[in-house]
Formats: sequence, C-alpha cells, structure tokens
Amino acid sequence: MNPLSCPLPLTETETVLSGHGSGGKLTAELFRSIFLPAFSNSILGRMDDQALLEIESARLAFTTDSFVVKPLFFRGGDIGSLAVHGTVNDLAVGGARPLFLSAAFILEEGLPIATLRRIVTSMQEAAARAGVQIVTGDTKVVEKGSCDGMFVNTAGIGIIETTLRLSADQARPGDVVLLSGPIGDHGIAILAEREGLSFESEIASDTAPLYSLVADMLETRATLRCMRDPTRGGVASASNEIAQTSHVGIQLYEESIPVKPEVRGACELLGIDPLYIANEGKLLAITAPEDAERLLDAMRRNPLGTDAAVIGKVSSENPGMVTLRTSFGTTRIMDMLANDPLPRIC
Amino acid sequence: MNPLSCPLPLTETETVLSGHGSGGKLTAELFRSIFLPAFSNSILGRMDDQALLEIESARLAFTTDSFVVKPLFFRGGDIGSLAVHGTVNDLAVGGARPLFLSAAFILEEGLPIATLRRIVTSMQEAAARAGVQIVTGDTKVVEKGSCDGMFVNTAGIGIIETTLRLSADQARPGDVVLLSGPIGDHGIAILAEREGLSFESEIASDTAPLYSLVADMLETRATLRCMRDPTRGGVASASNEIAQTSHVGIQLYEESIPVKPEVRGACELLGIDPLYIANEGKLLAITAPEDAERLLDAMRRNPLGTDAAVIGKVSSENPGMVTLRTSFGTTRIMDMLANDPLPRIC
Repeated sequence: MNPLSCPLPLTETETVLSGHGSGGKLTAELFRSIFLPAFSNSILGRMDDQALLEIESARLAFTTDSFVVKPLFFRGGDIGSLAVHGTVNDLAVGGARPLFLSAAFILEEGLPIATLRRIVTSMQEAAARAGVQIVTGDTKVVEKGSCDGMFVNTAGIGIIETTLRLSADQARPGDVVLLSGPIGDHGIAILAEREGLSFESEIASDTAPLYSLVADMLETRATLRCMRDPTRGGVASASNEIAQTSHVGIQLYEESIPVKPEVRGACELLGIDPLYIANEGKLLAITAPEDAERLLDAMRRNPLGTDAAVIGKVSSENPGMVTLRTSFGTTRIMDMLANDPLPRIC
Repeated sequence: MNPLSCPLPLTETETVLSGHGSGGKLTAELFRSIFLPAFSNSILGRMDDQALLEIESARLAFTTDSFVVKPLFFRGGDIGSLAVHGTVNDLAVGGARPLFLSAAFILEEGLPIATLRRIVTSMQEAAARAGVQIVTGDTKVVEKGSCDGMFVNTAGIGIIETTLRLSADQARPGDVVLLSGPIGDHGIAILAEREGLSFESEIASDTAPLYSLVADMLETRATLRCMRDPTRGGVASASNEIAQTSHVGIQLYEESIPVKPEVRGACELLGIDPLYIANEGKLLAITAPEDAERLLDAMRRNPLGTDAAVIGKVSSENPGMVTLRTSFGTTRIMDMLANDPLPRIC
C-alpha cells in the first residue's frame, strides 16, 4: 500500500470533514478505519464500486449511492438523472447489465411539487435510456433547511453475464490504461452553475449511462482487468485505488488524456487539475496490452467512446502509486487528494 | 378504492409537506400521483414494501428505506440498528430471507467520528443478529446544518423460498388479522427521548429483526395472504393499505390489540392513538381463518411473538375501509391520517 495514501487511523476526538466525502484520501481512510473493520466481510473487502453476489445460479452486482449535488439542476442533467446514471454505471463497470433500481427520497418541507415532478420525470427518462426499472422506493420528509431541497439515494442490481473477474486488484505490470473520453465536464458544469460562472463555451455535464459502452467492450472478449467510472476524485483517485489495490504502479501520459479546451481553460482559471474532477459518463479501463487496440476500436465505435484513448500503462515500478508523465517530459506523483476541490458534486 | 383515501391529484403549485413523509394518506397520494405514474411498471405497481424480482431461477425481494430519525440515539436503539431492522423487516414481510444490505451515509460536517463509529458498530451488531451482510456502501458529506448529524439509507436483497404469493392484494373476506405483539413502543420511545419526557416506566423501542418470526410462521405452511411491519402510520395505516389494495373491509377489535399499559398511558396523556404510532419490531399478518390458531401458536413460541393475538377480521363490508370495534361496542372508521402525529420517527 502506498504509504502516502495510508494515514494514521482516525482517532475518537476527530469529527467528520468535508474531505471525508471527497472520494479521495479521507474517504478511503474513513472506509478503512470505520466501515471495513465493522462490516468486515470478503465481499465488501474487495473495495470495488459494486458488490458481487452469488445467489443460486445467478451472479449479481449490487451497489448504492446517495446524491447530494448542489444545485439540483445543472447544464446537462439534474439530481434525478445523476442518481440513475451513478448507480447503473457502478454496476456497468463491474461488467453487470443493470436491471433494477430502488429510489429513496429525502425531501425538504416546502419543496415545490413541480420540482419533485421534474426530477422524477428525469429519473424515469434516464432509467428508460439505461434499460432499468425503478421497482421500489421510499420517501422521507425533513423540516425546512434540513436537506437543501432533496437528497436522493439509488441502489441497483445488475446481472453479470461475463466470466471475466473485473476487480481493482486485477491490474498487472504491462497492462494498458484506457479512457473513454474527455474529462472534467461534470465538475466544471456544476461549478459554473453554482458559482454563476459563464465560460466562453457553455460546458455541460457528461452524465450518461455507460452499459452500452461496456457491452460493446465485453463483446470483443478482450482480457479486461478492471473498470471504473471516475466520479468523485476523478481519474487520479480512481487510478490510485487500482494502483493500491493491485500493488502496481500506474503511469498516466498527460498529453494523451483528452480534456476539452473549454474545460482546460476553466481549470487553469480556477487552479484545479482536471485529473481530480468528477466525471459522470466516463469509463477508465485496464486491459492486457495485446487487446488494447481492439478494445479502443470497439469503444470508439460507441457514441459514448468516440474520443477514447490509451492514457497510460501499468508497471511494477512505484507499486501503489500513480505518476504523471507531463507534456514537458517530467514525471510527478498524482496522489489521492485529502480534500475535495469541488464538494457536493454528486 | 376508499374515496376517503383518494384525494385529488397534487397540483403543481403545491409544496412538499411534513405529512408527505408520514406513511399515511399524503404519502400514498405522493406515491400515486408522482412516483407510480412516472416509474410505471408492474413490480412497483404491486405497492408492497418490497419488490419481487425474478432473476434467472432465483426469486428475490428488493427494498430500500432512508432513515432520518431524530435523535440519532434513543432507548432501545439508534439510527444504525433501525436502518438495518427497517430494511430486513421489509424483506421478511415479503416472505424473503434477508441476505445482503447496502449502507449509504449522508454525514454532516463536524459529526464526531466517535458518534459515527458507535452507529456503525450498532449496524453491524444488528446485521449479525439478522443474518445479513453489509456488502456495499457510500458516504457523502454535507455542510454543517444540512442533515441533522446523519441520514442513513439501506437497501436490501432477500431470497424468497416460499411458494406463497404474499401481497397487499391477497386479503379476502373471512380472513383473520394477526398481530405479533404490543404496539406503539417505538414511537413513544422516540417521542420521550426527543421531548425529554419521562414516563412512569421507561419505554424502549421495539426495534428488532423479524425474519426468525416469519420463518417460524412459514414453517407452519399456513395460508398466509399478506404481512406488513406496521412502521410509520402504525397498524391503522398498514391495515388501510391492505384493505384498499385488496378491496376488502378490515375490522379491528380494540380490546384485542395489545398495548403496554405505560404506552397506553403516554398515548392518553399526549392525545395520540396507538394504532397510528410506528412500530419497528412488530408484524401484522392476514391469514386464512382455518390456519389462524396454528399460526398464532407458532408466533407465540417465538420470543418476538409471545404476545401475538388475533386483532381483527377481513370482510366484504365497507371495501377499502378499516373500522374499529371499540371496547364500548361501537364502531368507528380508522382512516389513514393525512398528517403525521410524530414526524422523523424513522
């Protein structure tokens, strides 16, 4: 394990910090020191975005996410579509075809019914596009000022029809890192909405359901090791999770990582690295080197992967660490961040 | 459908009210006018506490609940044990053996880590007692003042090993209504904690996992029609749901409904009817009349059902309505409440 990413255990005098929800170093620390020891079981211990369950003859994936994005509506989506995509994508990156979702709402007293209706409609459109049914749910209401309008939780069940064992511990030296398209759109879109910033070209969230892309990738029968949707914490944090869990080094090539010019411009203006920004419709995949080209071709033929690229490699050097080979030819460490550059992003 | 329980559709000018989270009439209205039409599918349309899924050869139950109880700790439990019991019980009343849970936390910045650890430990103890594994999860952090310390969501998957079709639409005239034990403990325990009330004898929440009781009931091979755990809205609301969905009348016998003297006293003091108060470890069951005694015997042999009783009958009179035959021999309608006598109870 990367010593940089393994802080001391949480002491009882500490309090929850914003960074504990960042998807970065503090989130990992909370998981390792509180949740994992308490709920200790081999399924949770795999530390993937979804649990792999075997029930009778069925191999199922099971996952959950709560959504607290602020504001509720943003260019390209809203908390409803995000809540569907986030969960179906966590199933998809486990190689599972999403089947069923639950939807649980915590609503603030005084929320306009029209707002709720608009979000619920958006959820249904997203569910239909993703091929899932929302089959069970719950509604709680809290006092005004207790939940910023609405929080949404979705949990999802998918079926695994591949025999691949996709997991963060499967990357090995020599493997190739693929990315399905340009990064940073979601985070910058939320930030722009929240802060009332307007950039030269309006940036929209990339929020989208990824299973059709995954299905095309699985169809190639390539030797996939692991997939992640780089949401909170971005490509840098997702890569770190894989590097740490597989005990390998991951080197990313800065010049190969697709970033739209307007996102790059916004990032420079704001002093944020796009590698740490959340995406909601992108896929990071680790594959055996001999299959990389074939996979890339399949990804590029799918509308969600037209800009797919090889963005790095797995090596035995610097195990547990992610390094970036910069455009200037230098190399720097891309550690997980302790804190969140953009809180309440999903 | 009971016209009393079928208000006009929500208009776009309305806002979310506390009662929309009550488990009563407004909750049903929100479900019927917003969620059901949008997410329209036959599984959700069954209006049970859990979705019945058929995946390959497995018959699964799937459910979710968010927990926003205030305060986080109370006599007899806390938000963690409640979050486990609530979801495993929604599986159990569908005849499903609970197998796996997800756990998603929305934490408020500044929450002491020691509080989180205590709740997580309580969740694990509850999960172990209920025979389930917590296999996947999520953590979000929101700003101070945005979630009253912590909200918890759990979703659960269970396996249905019975061939019974347990559903709210299965009750028929002549059936018998059984209740597993005294009602109102949970609601009164929360209220006492919240308001700093002290009653003669300290009342503790009844929060408990019900599957062992359900398993004992299923083992009798009795013709069970439907089961509910009467949480928010209490026995009155759960009975109304069944009466409306099955298009039957349900008559409850006031003198047969077990209520602990200290709960009855508190209810009288506070002017609340125990039939509308939330329970977190009680089970309401509808069964064919010829099997009622056998079922009752099985329930009473389980520690969770020692005070089980026949509390009513199903008839063809007053379809869609619940009536109470009072101790004075009179009869009154027990409609669903629009509002919640005790909000933030779970």
